[in-house]
Amino acid sequence: MVSDEDLAAGVRAGDSRALARALTAVENRGPEARRLVAELYPRTGNAAVWGLTGPPGVGKSTLADAIASCALRSGRKVAILAIDPSSPVTGGAFLGDRVRMEASNRNPEIFIRSMATRGHVGGLAAAAFEAITLLDAAGKDLILVETVGVGQDEVEVAAAVGLTLVVLAPGLGDELQANKAGLLEIADLLVVNKADRDGADRLADELASANRDAVRSPAIVSTIATSGEGVDRLFQVAVELAAVPEKSSEVRRKRFVEGWLEEVLRQIVREKVPERVWKDAVDRVVSRSSDPFAAAELVLASIGGKKRQ
Amino acid sequence: MVSDEDLAAGVRAGDSRALARALTAVENRGPEARRLVAELYPRTGNAAVWGLTGPPGVGKSTLADAIASCALRSGRKVAILAIDPSSPVTGGAFLGDRVRMEASNRNPEIFIRSMATRGHVGGLAAAAFEAITLLDAAGKDLILVETVGVGQDEVEVAAAVGLTLVVLAPGLGDELQANKAGLLEIADLLVVNKADRDGADRLADELASANRDAVRSPAIVSTIATSGEGVDRLFQVAVELAAVPEKSSEVRRKRFVEGWLEEVLRQIVREKVPERVWKDAVDRVVSRSSDPFAAAELVLASIGGKKRQ
Repeated sequence: MVSDEDLAAGVRAGDSRALARALTAVENRGPEARRLVAELYPRTGNAAVWGLTGPPGVGKSTLADAIASCALRSGRKVAILAIDPSSPVTGGAFLGDRVRMEASNRNPEIFIRSMATRGHVGGLAAAAFEAITLLDAAGKDLILVETVGVGQDEVEVAAAVGLTLVVLAPGLGDELQANKAGLLEIADLLVVNKADRDGADRLADELASANRDAVRSPAIVSTIATSGEGVDRLFQVAVELAAVPEKSSEVRRKRFVEGWLEEVLRQIVREKVPERVWKDAVDRVVSRSSDPFAAAELVLASIGGKKRQ
Repeated sequence: MVSDEDLAAGVRAGDSRALARALTAVENRGPEARRLVAELYPRTGNAAVWGLTGPPGVGKSTLADAIASCALRSGRKVAILAIDPSSPVTGGAFLGDRVRMEASNRNPEIFIRSMATRGHVGGLAAAAFEAITLLDAAGKDLILVETVGVGQDEVEVAAAVGLTLVVLAPGLGDELQANKAGLLEIADLLVVNKADRDGADRLADELASANRDAVRSPAIVSTIATSGEGVDRLFQVAVELAAVPEKSSEVRRKRFVEGWLEEVLRQIVREKVPERVWKDAVDRVVSRSSDPFAAAELVLASIGGKKRQ
């Protein structure tokens, strides 16, 4: 058995096994992780955190690897955190095996972790925030948060970090194409990956013209992640962008903390509710002898929360 | 101004304008919606609710239309609820315009609503649960819940309903293909749409052989939603499946209610926290003078929740 103190010390020393164990604790959402993160949190804030998001199939994982290699060559300690949507039934990751399989081909100097969460949807974001805290405490200089899904929480995670890279590629279907507007809004940097494919120039032109009409104008960089072409330039542009002290970074940091705090508050409330009270509330709503709002008020009253007048 | 009572009466009478207005209230997550849903909830439980989920580009919207037309011909009152992921920045729907544009081509006898939510991720599920309550109260016999995204919350919404149809099509990319395992787990019925395309037979064979290894064996039906081929059969199979009183339906109903109750509890707690207390907690976590767990405990204490020992 490793004590919480030893585990925290191991993480702080940058020990990969301690870090992996701590990340598992965060994934499992237990009190151990909470003590660990609480202890490490005050000394964090040194790592740069970049989010990579975009539709499936654009090559985010390959690009994350390529960016990580650039960062490594520049002398930075790098980690990649791949956020997976969980299966609602088994709690297993949808894409976990795929990501882990690829990871074995990755550079051993780059710390890579694929992470999924069980249960409540907001848990995905909270676990990501806590994992970032651990990686930061372990002395990583750059954390790349790669979101695998294209749902609302995945995009929120990617947008809540320091710098958001939105990755696109030519040949997306209509439906993915329609996602573009939402993705453009959150982008600090637009990457046209698979730039050697047909339609890449047209996509870059489209993005440039969308930029002209927009309030924010993210930089556009073309890459071929598989060969590494354009990745050095992308890395330089990202480093420069991240160095600009933006007004928005304070706003973003607050949004990040607000989301985290909301999720922690939810967890704490839920844990304080006696199981009997919770089961009873669920049964009453299932049988329609109570509506969920009245039931929730009674649940809250059971932990000492003031009842609404 | 329409009073809550008038609006509830309008919904109960099946008035489409009242229903549309009530759904907007639910989308806006205000106290008006809460009163409305609380009033209508006890008399609901009559509608069949089927979820349609699957990767982008498989033709879910077209299939939902075709199923709805079948249901209409069988004398049922039908509604389609399309759940959109929201943009975290503007709060607008990613795919809202697309869905609404298509809706104008749909059958006017089918009530169609595209819905997006702002803010917290769990809000998507809660809003869907409340929208289902309204549609049920309005006398719909069948509610098709079509989830547009492929993230965790969208899949959870689709899986929380009475019968889950997972829609696939040949020619999905590798990454979407990898999603299959997670989607298969939640399926009561597998639909191979675009059955006239290359690879449709192979996909159906793959699904059948995956079925042989699985604990659950969902039925597999092939369709061409654009021409309507196979849709009558799909509808009949779905109706038969929905009529079987499964052990799992009670479990599923409880999961549905638990998710809803958790989200309502979260909202109520958040509303009771004085704005000054919340801002102060966020500031302390942002400046790292407090960790989020200690800050959340103080926030909870401010509304009378017992502080952890």
